[in-house]
Amino acid sequence: MALIVQKYGGTSVGDTERIKNVAKKIIESKKKGNQVAVVVSAMSGDTDRLIGLAHKITDLPNEREMDVLMSSGERVSIALVAIAIRSMGEKAVSFTGRQVGMLTDKVHTKARIEKINAGRIRAALDSGHIAIVAGFQGITEEGDVTTLGRGGSDTSAVAIAAALNADVCEIYTDVDGVYTADPRIVPGARRLDKISHEEMLEMASLGAKVLQIRSVEFAMKYNVPLYVLSSFAEGGGTLVTMEDETMEQVLVTGVTLARDDAKVSIRRVPDRPGIAASIFKPLADASIVVDMIIQNVSKDGFTDITFTVNKADCKKALKIMEPIVKSIGAAELNTDENISKVSIIGAGMRNHAGVASKMFESLSKDGINIQMISTSEIKISCIVESKYGELAVRILHDAFALDKINR
Amino acid sequence: MALIVQKYGGTSVGDTERIKNVAKKIIESKKKGNQVAVVVSAMSGDTDRLIGLAHKITDLPNEREMDVLMSSGERVSIALVAIAIRSMGEKAVSFTGRQVGMLTDKVHTKARIEKINAGRIRAALDSGHIAIVAGFQGITEEGDVTTLGRGGSDTSAVAIAAALNADVCEIYTDVDGVYTADPRIVPGARRLDKISHEEMLEMASLGAKVLQIRSVEFAMKYNVPLYVLSSFAEGGGTLVTMEDETMEQVLVTGVTLARDDAKVSIRRVPDRPGIAASIFKPLADASIVVDMIIQNVSKDGFTDITFTVNKADCKKALKIMEPIVKSIGAAELNTDENISKVSIIGAGMRNHAGVASKMFESLSKDGINIQMISTSEIKISCIVESKYGELAVRILHDAFALDKINR
Repeated sequence: MALIVQKYGGTSVGDTERIKNVAKKIIESKKKGNQVAVVVSAMSGDTDRLIGLAHKITDLPNEREMDVLMSSGERVSIALVAIAIRSMGEKAVSFTGRQVGMLTDKVHTKARIEKINAGRIRAALDSGHIAIVAGFQGITEEGDVTTLGRGGSDTSAVAIAAALNADVCEIYTDVDGVYTADPRIVPGARRLDKISHEEMLEMASLGAKVLQIRSVEFAMKYNVPLYVLSSFAEGGGTLVTMEDETMEQVLVTGVTLARDDAKVSIRRVPDRPGIAASIFKPLADASIVVDMIIQNVSKDGFTDITFTVNKADCKKALKIMEPIVKSIGAAELNTDENISKVSIIGAGMRNHAGVASKMFESLSKDGINIQMISTSEIKISCIVESKYGELAVRILHDAFALDKINR
Repeated sequence: MALIVQKYGGTSVGDTERIKNVAKKIIESKKKGNQVAVVVSAMSGDTDRLIGLAHKITDLPNEREMDVLMSSGERVSIALVAIAIRSMGEKAVSFTGRQVGMLTDKVHTKARIEKINAGRIRAALDSGHIAIVAGFQGITEEGDVTTLGRGGSDTSAVAIAAALNADVCEIYTDVDGVYTADPRIVPGARRLDKISHEEMLEMASLGAKVLQIRSVEFAMKYNVPLYVLSSFAEGGGTLVTMEDETMEQVLVTGVTLARDDAKVSIRRVPDRPGIAASIFKPLADASIVVDMIIQNVSKDGFTDITFTVNKADCKKALKIMEPIVKSIGAAELNTDENISKVSIIGAGMRNHAGVASKMFESLSKDGINIQMISTSEIKISCIVESKYGELAVRILHDAFALDKINR
């Protein structure tokens, strides 16, 4: 008997027919003799519908209230999944974030899990129930509702798997695994049978929507075996696991495209010590993640600073930057949302030179201008104009022969 | 400075424009120097949409899970109202049923409030916030989610008003008060300036959808002044208050129509002691409210028993009755959902005879057959075939000259 945590995403529970199918899959797993805890996202479209309602009222809705609003979506889906399972004769009980003691910090709309009290889930499992847990939502020590950010249900699932010391965490989604690129952009993209935590982490950070970053961090930290599987098809799947030697034989494992960055530029910043801190500390204080930063060589005591933030944070960042730009005596504040980030990822990069130059060459050959670059041990990212994003992915997938990858 | 509890129903918060209007009304009240706590229902249509989803999965969804499902609706509306108020520059904070300690019994889908911990609302009010509270929902001692039944937000509002010792509880709805009859059925229906708790209680029990019964009971018990007002128009309104002498001068105050009853008949029930208990106790145990009961005169040791339950409980009642009918050796179990209940209500009936006979005569004159009758001190109800329901209301409104009522 194994203890399995399954997670079903929004499209997997997108309507009542799909919910019934999910219920059948869950019951099958239980009938094989397993204890099954299930984490469910909101029905697809539901979260966007709720955000849309708030934005019809104001551009900058209060974040505490946004969390109350958005957390309603998973209540609907956990209740419906539990209702479906019970209607098929199995015992099931739903739990909200509060009811499983999913304690988080107080950063509304992107809270981090601090502690889980798995006692109530374990008691339900031990009494023969299937536990259906609301993903994405938590609660602060004061009892306020929080949410974990887009894709937060993945993190809920891995965190619950860790807390329960589960044998495996299965992430069911609308694709049957992790691909070398988004198959909608690159028809010849290949599914990977396995991928290292680090690679997956970079892929998730860089636009592959298949898993939330935090969930991979959790899986790595607590060594939770993580499977990405399709909720619509049998078989397939990608195992996210520890890096092994065979993995390094492949230079590049994947190409990703992220459309959710925005560029913020500040021109003629007086170049004196502490100036960067005065710009970036207020952003950090507001929990705005800054991704790439470029500072030009100083000229006449002035420099230009450009950085990228998530598009969703762009308005908030502007509001914070406006008084600062004034107070430090900089000249100009601009934003550009018309950018995409294309990245190549691979554990093999660690020990091979020449990957970066091959990337830049391939892009320039087709006239694609690179606006910003950032690199880490196992990835290289370039910011390009939005309209070139998909073309860039196809060019790089070709250049590194990912259609012939063997992993 | 007064402490006002306002309640806005589903149509009042039916879309984001209406939510903004409600926010303005609330702020106006605050700016007059009042402390304002607001109870909000789910956006109109939302609860029905959720129930519809559950019923697409199964006819008899688990009630614990139904409460989790339905309680999501008010989370959406409280968050949106709070967001709207904050976007207009006032301080507001939303509270779920759990967060205000709305403790109920464990009867899912129609729980009763046992206790409210108003401390968190009071603290919010005292710090200058408008408190936005989710109606309709509560929580058991074990932390399970409950709901208070249709219209439960009215009860939430009155209960909170009582707990806060509020000066007044204003129920904003889509009509501007309590009418002698539903104006959609009787165009000449008149608005009442005031109505006694008892009359309101009967009206609410008998089909007037303007207030939930429990809310009137609460208002009576804790002597909370209750106003029914329109959220769309200024002025008007009906005060629900203690009975005074002038009220008894009117024989009949209102005519109501209820379409939510179903008739259950059991034929050839062996007429022996305890037989009624064996039928009705299991229904009571399942929290099914039985309204009218008729038992025919016994013949050959057998009798027929007919009773009415809420249509929503009909399937559940049937399921409970089937084995019982078998075990007691009765002949036949039938249900009829094709009925309506038409009632006349008036505090003046207490001291006047002849009201009942006038009602029966008026109906029979137009060929309407009465299937069941039930009376109390201040009301008379008749079950008629559904298709005659609206006609019966118009006939009785005419017969008792309610278009000329003066109260």
